[in-house]
Amino acid sequence: MKSAILSVGTEILFGQITNTNTVYLSQKLNMLGIDVMYHHSVGDNSKRLADMIKQAFLDCDLIITTGGLGPTQDDLTKEIACEVLNDQLIPHEPSMKWLEDHFQRMGRKMTENNWKQGYLPSRATVFENEVGTAPGFALEDHGNTIICMPGPPREMKHMFETHVIPYLENQTEEKIFYRNIRLFGIGESQVETDLITLINDQTDPTIATYAKEVECSVRVASKRGNLKDATSAVDGMTDKISKILGDYIYSIDDEELHQVVGKKLIERNITVASAESCTGGLFAQTITEIPGISAVFDRGFVTYSNQSKISELGVNPQTLDQFGAVSKETAIEMAQGLQKKTGCRLCISVTGIAGPGGATPDKPIGLVYVCVIFDGETICRQTNIRNINRTWNRNFAKLYMLDMVNKIIEGKTEM
Amino acid sequence: MKSAILSVGTEILFGQITNTNTVYLSQKLNMLGIDVMYHHSVGDNSKRLADMIKQAFLDCDLIITTGGLGPTQDDLTKEIACEVLNDQLIPHEPSMKWLEDHFQRMGRKMTENNWKQGYLPSRATVFENEVGTAPGFALEDHGNTIICMPGPPREMKHMFETHVIPYLENQTEEKIFYRNIRLFGIGESQVETDLITLINDQTDPTIATYAKEVECSVRVASKRGNLKDATSAVDGMTDKISKILGDYIYSIDDEELHQVVGKKLIERNITVASAESCTGGLFAQTITEIPGISAVFDRGFVTYSNQSKISELGVNPQTLDQFGAVSKETAIEMAQGLQKKTGCRLCISVTGIAGPGGATPDKPIGLVYVCVIFDGETICRQTNIRNINRTWNRNFAKLYMLDMVNKIIEGKTEM
Repeated sequence: MKSAILSVGTEILFGQITNTNTVYLSQKLNMLGIDVMYHHSVGDNSKRLADMIKQAFLDCDLIITTGGLGPTQDDLTKEIACEVLNDQLIPHEPSMKWLEDHFQRMGRKMTENNWKQGYLPSRATVFENEVGTAPGFALEDHGNTIICMPGPPREMKHMFETHVIPYLENQTEEKIFYRNIRLFGIGESQVETDLITLINDQTDPTIATYAKEVECSVRVASKRGNLKDATSAVDGMTDKISKILGDYIYSIDDEELHQVVGKKLIERNITVASAESCTGGLFAQTITEIPGISAVFDRGFVTYSNQSKISELGVNPQTLDQFGAVSKETAIEMAQGLQKKTGCRLCISVTGIAGPGGATPDKPIGLVYVCVIFDGETICRQTNIRNINRTWNRNFAKLYMLDMVNKIIEGKTEM
Repeated sequence: MKSAILSVGTEILFGQITNTNTVYLSQKLNMLGIDVMYHHSVGDNSKRLADMIKQAFLDCDLIITTGGLGPTQDDLTKEIACEVLNDQLIPHEPSMKWLEDHFQRMGRKMTENNWKQGYLPSRATVFENEVGTAPGFALEDHGNTIICMPGPPREMKHMFETHVIPYLENQTEEKIFYRNIRLFGIGESQVETDLITLINDQTDPTIATYAKEVECSVRVASKRGNLKDATSAVDGMTDKISKILGDYIYSIDDEELHQVVGKKLIERNITVASAESCTGGLFAQTITEIPGISAVFDRGFVTYSNQSKISELGVNPQTLDQFGAVSKETAIEMAQGLQKKTGCRLCISVTGIAGPGGATPDKPIGLVYVCVIFDGETICRQTNIRNINRTWNRNFAKLYMLDMVNKIIEGKTEM
């Protein structure tokens, strides 16, 4: 199956948003064994949108669109999909009912244009939007299929995972299984070097490496006649990769690092407290994204000023004078103060220089100290983050903290 | 002048890279008064690349390509540009000389395929690449122009700023100016309803509404003979929109809400402390993204457990018993405790139910209380966030906090 991804919205052509939908969809479609031939972006303009769809169908039998399903006048995707694939919009009763209930539940008044979202092509397979208001759909005509989804990434991804993948899997005989193995602390080129024999020998399962911001991942995919064979082929290859890169792997199920760590803390009932300087609450915020974490996460401190380090955590003013706020000594005293105050099993502190200001000849941007006290044992580490920018540096520091926690509670790090 | 941006490279279609070149180029071209009609991405395939260029020239008189200028076999852009615009590649002496010098300077041996980069279309205006090895160029034929640049963003941007902008400024008469007005606390369909008369009457400036996660925005753009006229037309329309939607507007310069708030706090030297429950440090983390915020941000507390609310902030245990952790009373006592402890001019607290667990019949997911004490005056607000999911709810609560701070320090909210 050959596909094109079509992003609809004038804001894209103005450069107001970075189109991350195409990246996500390209990865997913390739994993499903569907070739992606083109990405197109076009504005909210009927003629150009229609021409682009017709043009794409010359080469492709599947077009995936995002955007242009909203309630306003310039949302045109449904109308044009009907025009090209010979259908018409009619009220879709379940969607109409859902919209009405939804606005009632919210206590918001439905404007006239909100009803528009309940009209859908008469022959469409409708995809409910559980996290927004615009439903999506698939529409087929003479072997050409268009799948239309909303533009906001959160809604699009939810709809794709929940409704579109099962729909597409029904269109094909072969079953695909894949794993996305996630790694921290190693670069993509090193991953490729370490796996080069496996990569060069690949047929099925296929192996591909990807670089994300800060992290990287390895995708292992197999396409077989049934899911059981595909799964077993992928699991066999995953074992081989784990033998080589096990020290860096934190998930073979495409989980985020904070999800892995959060789940372990909850399952093992490890109470946690944090004291952050340079990350400004990023660690606490990230770990508390996990539902149910309140059972173990006790409290966090963002001790930005020196005074707050002294009064909240009992850091010795002399330590700050002698070694500075960004030092191993301060990090340790922060964690010790935290432990004394909260009695949590795991206490973590961080202090560093996020930039762009604050660097000295001795202490460059990216210098970060993390201290963890776990069940009474103390470990303090220094890392020198490659300075990209403030946001990147803070994010890296947070992942470094999570990785350290993950290894320590697994007993993988000598205390 | 109408343009299309064409990104060349199979890695884009695999979703291996996020295409930031198109965002950058779209912004720049629009500012230069050049309409961007399409973005296309195509793999390293001669036929599809040639077809795509021919197709784009049906609508556009300018095509900007990035990628495919490298030394390897799958770098095809120059060859295809020549094919479509009737030219041929010849050795370009200055580039050949530069390449030779460059490799000598680097102490690297030139491979056979490196010479390929010195071949350029015979009629091209060549753009030197000061930060890489592949030169770019503009090639014109019968009113159609193609501009080819290397794919790596750093090289592309440098070439665009240094060589392409001066080249394009010579080609165009009109100048464009636009503003992106950002709003919080109002939905896109309500914005459109409120602005419907202006939208229906629009010619120049044009008005368009956009929904982002949680927030929405209005873009106002004008294209005139000179920048002064375009700016003044946009500013006039911005005033009209501000009269209608002023209560919701937090930026007319496309800034993020936390940037607006952070800058004001720093400029006005308003010291800040925060105490967060349901947002888990998200407020502190977001506000500390602003460089220089350490001058005013003193400290933050993530008081997740009841015990931490009592011991860190002095919340009365009876208040927690009687009204619960998620209550107006607890929010106020959290802010009061914070104020007493830190003496900051602005103290903000938040407590709420982020979900998915924790709801009771009285207290649904999305119920949030925010209390701000500013220069001794206390204001506490309740909001009922539309429950999407934990991440969305927390993010909304954070923006609600920032919006409240923004209004309070502007004196826009009765205390």
